[in-house]
Amino acid sequence: MSSDGFRPLDEKLLVEYVKSTPSLAAKLGNQFDDLQIKEVGDGNLNFVYIVVGSSGSFVIKQALPYIRCIGESWPMTKERAYFEVTALREEGSLCPDHVPEVYHFDRQMCLIGMRYVEPPHIILRKGLIAGIEYPKLAEHISGFMAKTLFYTSLLYLTTTDHKSAVAKFCGNVELCRLTEQVVFSDPYKVSEYNHWTTPYLDADAEAVREDNILKLEVAELKSKFCERTQALIHGDLHTGSVMVTTDSTQVIDPEFAFYGPMGFDVGAFIGNLILAYFAQDGHADKGPDRKLYKEWILKTISDTWNLFYEKFTALWDKHKDGPGEAYLPAIYNNPELQVLVKQKYMEDLFHDTLGFGAAKMIRRIVGVAHVEDFESIKEASKRAECERKALNFAKTLLKERKKFHNISEVVSAIKDVDK
Amino acid sequence: MSSDGFRPLDEKLLVEYVKSTPSLAAKLGNQFDDLQIKEVGDGNLNFVYIVVGSSGSFVIKQALPYIRCIGESWPMTKERAYFEVTALREEGSLCPDHVPEVYHFDRQMCLIGMRYVEPPHIILRKGLIAGIEYPKLAEHISGFMAKTLFYTSLLYLTTTDHKSAVAKFCGNVELCRLTEQVVFSDPYKVSEYNHWTTPYLDADAEAVREDNILKLEVAELKSKFCERTQALIHGDLHTGSVMVTTDSTQVIDPEFAFYGPMGFDVGAFIGNLILAYFAQDGHADKGPDRKLYKEWILKTISDTWNLFYEKFTALWDKHKDGPGEAYLPAIYNNPELQVLVKQKYMEDLFHDTLGFGAAKMIRRIVGVAHVEDFESIKEASKRAECERKALNFAKTLLKERKKFHNISEVVSAIKDVDK
Repeated sequence: MSSDGFRPLDEKLLVEYVKSTPSLAAKLGNQFDDLQIKEVGDGNLNFVYIVVGSSGSFVIKQALPYIRCIGESWPMTKERAYFEVTALREEGSLCPDHVPEVYHFDRQMCLIGMRYVEPPHIILRKGLIAGIEYPKLAEHISGFMAKTLFYTSLLYLTTTDHKSAVAKFCGNVELCRLTEQVVFSDPYKVSEYNHWTTPYLDADAEAVREDNILKLEVAELKSKFCERTQALIHGDLHTGSVMVTTDSTQVIDPEFAFYGPMGFDVGAFIGNLILAYFAQDGHADKGPDRKLYKEWILKTISDTWNLFYEKFTALWDKHKDGPGEAYLPAIYNNPELQVLVKQKYMEDLFHDTLGFGAAKMIRRIVGVAHVEDFESIKEASKRAECERKALNFAKTLLKERKKFHNISEVVSAIKDVDK
Repeated sequence: MSSDGFRPLDEKLLVEYVKSTPSLAAKLGNQFDDLQIKEVGDGNLNFVYIVVGSSGSFVIKQALPYIRCIGESWPMTKERAYFEVTALREEGSLCPDHVPEVYHFDRQMCLIGMRYVEPPHIILRKGLIAGIEYPKLAEHISGFMAKTLFYTSLLYLTTTDHKSAVAKFCGNVELCRLTEQVVFSDPYKVSEYNHWTTPYLDADAEAVREDNILKLEVAELKSKFCERTQALIHGDLHTGSVMVTTDSTQVIDPEFAFYGPMGFDVGAFIGNLILAYFAQDGHADKGPDRKLYKEWILKTISDTWNLFYEKFTALWDKHKDGPGEAYLPAIYNNPELQVLVKQKYMEDLFHDTLGFGAAKMIRRIVGVAHVEDFESIKEASKRAECERKALNFAKTLLKERKKFHNISEVVSAIKDVDK
């Protein structure tokens, strides 16, 4: 154990830890003889153990002081576990249906005990690769985003509560810096961490690095990411941070959470759906007709935004006489004006969503961390073809985001690229 | 003395305090027999004592737990003294020529001891009312703004330093809330604190409260004020926060300081110069030809922005390979792109400046706290005429700020209103 009380757990230490931690032991009915333990941390940053006993189960997630997929050469504060659990609890209180319950937190050990999101839940990204439709996904994720973003913004909070929460999450700066680097910086410059499907995309990657207008627009997005404390965002809301069944949607892994621009969350989700869409042609031989599945993805993109819009503005209506500082009822006191301010707010949020979504797409094709949607396409030339379509679409979307007025125009533009 | 160690000073207690405080006593050469003490807090928030002895002098500023001009009915945290001294020291280290030196700070007593900005320094606003030209004002204030804003932004700071400073100044939330109320809220609704030159401006004040487009635009500015942590701003940079002689410019009273949008400072200064301009016709009988003086004010408005632009972008050039996170040299790596990003950044800052400047003008005419520029015009009908011109100009400027491309277009628009 290091002097700060931290020690990375292996299976043996884990069992000792659970036995000596009442809140966890109780979850297993204090039965330890038949424990099944599996390490499943296929993410980039942490150990994740699933612990299943005869009368209960949970997940133990432990943050390590470096980025796991790269190794000890890329240190990363393990304090992120504190911000993850703080965000989990906040999101959970706002949207309990879609956030796993926290059972235990140990700050010294950087260790969270939480609900095991059990099978048949799988990571959404894997479902999208397998071509599985999730009829309730848009409904669920739009609800999660509407609630977590609305209730932590100045549409609902007083300035006092908002600034206090902003200050707290400023402490999660190392994770913010990681995003700044891998999303907004590295893809646009020569970096040892960047990679892409070579040699097919060599010229495409270079074109990204030499596109002045793209870099001008990315600067605006980066500045919003760094400076705009609009709401408590998940900060990493891609399709790998969502677990699904046909009936259930659970959002996990908010370790990047901080007060940032709402569009970064909405964009992350929609951008990753667009990546899934462009990857489908690479999976067309693996399952049922991907043509219909692609239509379903496009519909889910549309539904996600439209339902988010509906739910978010409904919360706004519901709480328009509430504590929120942004639009005081004595000022925004007539229906015409209430419509105007909502339209403007949602239009700005839509453009942020498209910009951040596009940036998240680009970094997954020419940056450090790629997505399984493309990586699982074995044939490199085929993969590159899918990636190029996605990359070109993302570049256009990022640069011309303010020309789009609604999500159906975006869907049309996706179809145009895919012709 | 209250349980937290705070007691408001009167002259007698002040002398005791000075005698028992080595850093202050030393400033007076430990000579206390011939002390001259004057209370000069003509501001709204604090006690301010000038202490002059035979071999030294200083100012003691003590924050009170309420807004002085309104009384104990409007409580206000005295912790603001901590943020004021923190900002004074930061601004002083960045721009020592234009910020009074801090000699002493007592957090329990909410008390700052600092340089006495001695006669012939006067408050700039009084100089503007008297029709005095300050040939170095634009040069000095643009330097102050360029340095304090640039060096505390992500153009110069790392994300780590920036977020840490942002978090610290989140604590100054009560002063932020005061600004939100008196600048961005009260003027646009019925409020017991609002007043105006009645009955002349009754319809004008009502028109402000019923102008949907104006309120739509004010919401955008308020949101930037609350959410955009662009730089450490002074937060109250009007012409009453600046002391001047022909040769010297000293910026005082940064108790509203926090990480906010740069345009709020630049706009406060320029907006108050525009107020001074429109007040001149009310002072035309008091001194020399105000026609020439009005030209000087317009020139000072132009020079302030243009010199600020020049100095700010020069600092950017100087530090383009520095620690700043916003525009990494490996990305913004060609002259054409470097010009593009600067143009875009400065254009956005210009529009923020005009918007915030206009909002600060409006609140001084129909809000709670007015300016001596107008208040000193005794004849109400004359005063109302000046105020109406300023108000109408400010409304146009706020709503149409994005149509202006440079400061000379703004000056032309001022002249048009004044025809």
